[in-house]
Amino acid sequence: MGGDFAPAATIDGAVSALDEIGAGNVVVLLGPEALIREELRRRDVGQDRFAIVHCPQEITMEEKPLKALSEKPGSGIATGFRMLAQGQLDAFASAGNSGAMLAGAVTSIKCIPGVSRPCTCTMIPQEDGTYGLLLDIGTTPDAKPEVMVQFAIIGSLYARYVLGKADPKVGLLNVGTEDGKGNLQCQAVFPMLKACPHIRFTGNMEPRELFKNHVDVMVTDGFVGNIVLKEIETFYRLIQKRGLGDPLFDRLNYELYGGSPILGVNAPVVLGHGISSALAVKNMLLQSKRMSEQGLVDALRRLFAAYASQDGNA
Amino acid sequence: MGGDFAPAATIDGAVSALDEIGAGNVVVLLGPEALIREELRRRDVGQDRFAIVHCPQEITMEEKPLKALSEKPGSGIATGFRMLAQGQLDAFASAGNSGAMLAGAVTSIKCIPGVSRPCTCTMIPQEDGTYGLLLDIGTTPDAKPEVMVQFAIIGSLYARYVLGKADPKVGLLNVGTEDGKGNLQCQAVFPMLKACPHIRFTGNMEPRELFKNHVDVMVTDGFVGNIVLKEIETFYRLIQKRGLGDPLFDRLNYELYGGSPILGVNAPVVLGHGISSALAVKNMLLQSKRMSEQGLVDALRRLFAAYASQDGNA
Repeated sequence: MGGDFAPAATIDGAVSALDEIGAGNVVVLLGPEALIREELRRRDVGQDRFAIVHCPQEITMEEKPLKALSEKPGSGIATGFRMLAQGQLDAFASAGNSGAMLAGAVTSIKCIPGVSRPCTCTMIPQEDGTYGLLLDIGTTPDAKPEVMVQFAIIGSLYARYVLGKADPKVGLLNVGTEDGKGNLQCQAVFPMLKACPHIRFTGNMEPRELFKNHVDVMVTDGFVGNIVLKEIETFYRLIQKRGLGDPLFDRLNYELYGGSPILGVNAPVVLGHGISSALAVKNMLLQSKRMSEQGLVDALRRLFAAYASQDGNA
Repeated sequence: MGGDFAPAATIDGAVSALDEIGAGNVVVLLGPEALIREELRRRDVGQDRFAIVHCPQEITMEEKPLKALSEKPGSGIATGFRMLAQGQLDAFASAGNSGAMLAGAVTSIKCIPGVSRPCTCTMIPQEDGTYGLLLDIGTTPDAKPEVMVQFAIIGSLYARYVLGKADPKVGLLNVGTEDGKGNLQCQAVFPMLKACPHIRFTGNMEPRELFKNHVDVMVTDGFVGNIVLKEIETFYRLIQKRGLGDPLFDRLNYELYGGSPILGVNAPVVLGHGISSALAVKNMLLQSKRMSEQGLVDALRRLFAAYASQDGNA
């Protein structure tokens, strides 16, 4: 029931993902069972192609996350996280209340030992056809410098495990490229990124490099990252509205990527846009499957175990 | 000699501004006199159409601002601010070293009493053909909440005096529109903006409203504002490069506005882009003339005198 266009977009997306998901995997639909069955019937899709978990309650977009989660254990979000924590799901995706998704992740599957705060990331299409990663895009608005270093480590592993980049370059999003530039936060985090043995830090980067494939992972705090992402979305919508489509700009469409992974927690979770379409839902499913299959969470656990013991940074 | 294309772009811009500047005003060129006279001769422009102040020294883009200003009193920037402080100029514009321009403003003409920190602003074209104002765009990266309230007051007066908006609406750039959203800085400044009697605060605004003319003045701190502006410039260049011109996007061209006014100081100062073209230089001159003629600095002085005495905020 997550997102503005549920259940139609959710069901359509899940159905269209089936072929690519592969026979060995099961897509589990969480929501009111009768409604799901009715939607499948209407589409002439066999009821046996999905597992269905009846979730009679619904957390709306306006509800306070923690209160909603505790008062609605029968909601799709609360049920999904319970199943994920118990190993009944390998990955979980929803376009529902994003605060509840984040709170659910942190309270159920919890942060990986050594990770202070979770983060969310997004793919940024590059002019040369490749993709960069921007994080954090909204989870942790006032990130301390040591937390931003963790974002850099987490982003590097995501780029390696999910995007297949062998030795990802990390840049700090800043207002100038010289060392020592920026606000107090950037000035504090710069030397820490430089000293971090777990990443390949290439220095500051400016917004003009956002699409230039100078780095693979662009690190910023959740406030600035959210502003940058929303400005990209604003330009995407303006360009579409004005009929100026183009191979690069068309790739700014969030639907192509699905959603934003919540990273640093003990299982793959993907957070969808409130306006998720069927295409977005399909890609969220495929993205959560990739995150699960490619061993990202185990890799993060191993690295943070080493990181915590080496740097006393648990 | 300021900017990457000086002296050619500076002279061309100054020459093309002459007609609109009007007969009662004098454009003063600051730079090496022989070079200026040679450039004018080459263009067949009468030497008597400008006042020329010989400035044998030059502050380059790489120099440290305060050191350069004290070691090069004969530079155009140091001379311009000296003349401005002594009332020999009504306004001063340069596309030179922006740190030196800012340091020069703060050390020579100084901040208006009651203004804690200067700020710089930029015009943002709106979809409906109007313009909004974004500030601060880089002068004060770690603005305290009370300083951001001052930005809001200064921006409102600029919108009123220079852009002719009768009762400008002020929005706080944020990651959500609900009260209480955002990072700690936004959470702290929101109630202060709401309580400020000198502005018409309409609440938080998101990046999706950047071009929607929902507000006249968009307030943020110098770090976020600089990132937002540089991202706009990035999209402008991408759109141009890909041949997707359009009436709205074409208005993102900074050259049309000239430069960024340094606000909160005791005289009109306009800071140009390093890559200022002749068109940008022309518009910088016209902009500094408008700032001077429309009494912005006096209005700021009056309001901050009242503000300081009312709020104990000197």
